[in-house]
Amino acid sequence: MTVYDLMINRRSVRVFQDKEIPIKIVKNLLSAANNAPSAGNIQPLSIITVKKKENREKLSSIIGAQPWVKNAPLSMIFCLDFCRVKKWGSLSNVDFLGEKSFAHFLVGYADIMCAAQNVVMTAESLQLGSVYVGSIQGVMDKIRDNFSIPEYVLPLMLLSIGYPASKPEDMPKLEEKIIVHDEKYRLLDDNEIIEAYNNKYGKFDEDADDYLKKAYIEVLEANKQGSGYWLKLVKKRIKKLNIQNHAQFLFKLRYPSQAMVDQNNSLFQQMRNAGFEF
Amino acid sequence: MTVYDLMINRRSVRVFQDKEIPIKIVKNLLSAANNAPSAGNIQPLSIITVKKKENREKLSSIIGAQPWVKNAPLSMIFCLDFCRVKKWGSLSNVDFLGEKSFAHFLVGYADIMCAAQNVVMTAESLQLGSVYVGSIQGVMDKIRDNFSIPEYVLPLMLLSIGYPASKPEDMPKLEEKIIVHDEKYRLLDDNEIIEAYNNKYGKFDEDADDYLKKAYIEVLEANKQGSGYWLKLVKKRIKKLNIQNHAQFLFKLRYPSQAMVDQNNSLFQQMRNAGFEF
Repeated sequence: MTVYDLMINRRSVRVFQDKEIPIKIVKNLLSAANNAPSAGNIQPLSIITVKKKENREKLSSIIGAQPWVKNAPLSMIFCLDFCRVKKWGSLSNVDFLGEKSFAHFLVGYADIMCAAQNVVMTAESLQLGSVYVGSIQGVMDKIRDNFSIPEYVLPLMLLSIGYPASKPEDMPKLEEKIIVHDEKYRLLDDNEIIEAYNNKYGKFDEDADDYLKKAYIEVLEANKQGSGYWLKLVKKRIKKLNIQNHAQFLFKLRYPSQAMVDQNNSLFQQMRNAGFEF
Repeated sequence: MTVYDLMINRRSVRVFQDKEIPIKIVKNLLSAANNAPSAGNIQPLSIITVKKKENREKLSSIIGAQPWVKNAPLSMIFCLDFCRVKKWGSLSNVDFLGEKSFAHFLVGYADIMCAAQNVVMTAESLQLGSVYVGSIQGVMDKIRDNFSIPEYVLPLMLLSIGYPASKPEDMPKLEEKIIVHDEKYRLLDDNEIIEAYNNKYGKFDEDADDYLKKAYIEVLEANKQGSGYWLKLVKKRIKKLNIQNHAQFLFKLRYPSQAMVDQNNSLFQQMRNAGFEF
């Protein structure tokens, strides 16, 4: 299988076999991460590997309602680590002020995502599956407390990895002509937008399981692992909120728009608690 | 070559052959990007492909002093695109407020970096080389003006791609034991920090070209493309600033700490100009 085929066939895996990942393979994943591109080769990256049962449970209980975090034999917490860089600076008689620089934050975060995506693709090539858990960003304080993460270090991404027990079918995607712009940005008109998302998601007025497969695969994968509560709740809320289409499903139910904005204060506070303020 | 080997042997390539990339391969790169993981599968990604000579020159003149941007046969501008998502929402009678939500910004930016890194690795597997140009973040206003990028779209990453004419030797990296933490974060003591960076960079008191190879490969690669001015300037500034070690080189000369902090206002203003404010 070519790298291209791997990229096209990758799906986020959320149901894992109860099977440990050999140490040599874990080392390869970490080495792939460490050799990712890094702006100025500053390498503001730390990865906490979580394998012990008690720590997987701790991590899972902080993240909440995502059984894959507990069930995956390996999770990696990708941290933006300016603590190490600052110490190195201080020992070298120069101040590094990354925690006050939005530019350093942005390129450092890009670095850790390159490293994480290297792990995703290396894992894929070794018959492993993985899933990102971005909601770690909402609970950085608790993650820092529980995993001894010091000042100037932000746990910005979580990746859970293991041998797949179930892999989702095709995920709907926008066609490439929608994503790609030739030489300059091309604004789509209303009809093109409607058609683009209709082509992606299909009709909404089918049965709930069918549109959940397209727009919230997480609840179905959780259901397979005994977390049926979530699925029931979502179906109830679809009715209560009178959801009429996929966009409403996403931005009224799954990521309610005003609630997402209201998270800002908590996010910024958690960043300040870690010493980050721009 | 396995995917793992590809990951380990990848280097940022900054000198390209004057050779076009076949359209079929460009399509594969874009398809790899489009199939990257996306939080909630929202796909807030747009990619502007830049191939025409006049547009490569325009892009290069905005970015400044990085000849690879002009010389690469293909550059991709990776945009966080909330414009399309907002329009879809509006046509579906629901507000999407990603431009006001730092959480949406963070996971959306992670999405576009996953897509970009998919392109990097697919390119690598097809004998292409690539280099990220993060400094696009400092000139978002001009990029938006020149490539017709509308409100609610941020050009956050640039990737220049082509067939390598020169590939850097090994890049120094921190050892994995420095990056990786087993089950919880482990603080390094001063001696470990000093040793870690000494092992990475080696001694500083060698000739300038030797430490530039380790800490600023860009000026040497630019020099090969007739941009010798940059190399001369850096050597002059090393003396003028009395740089004594690698950390001082990075944070006094290459990324001067206070100047990086002072960029915040301009960065936030450029985000506001695109309609983003948290």
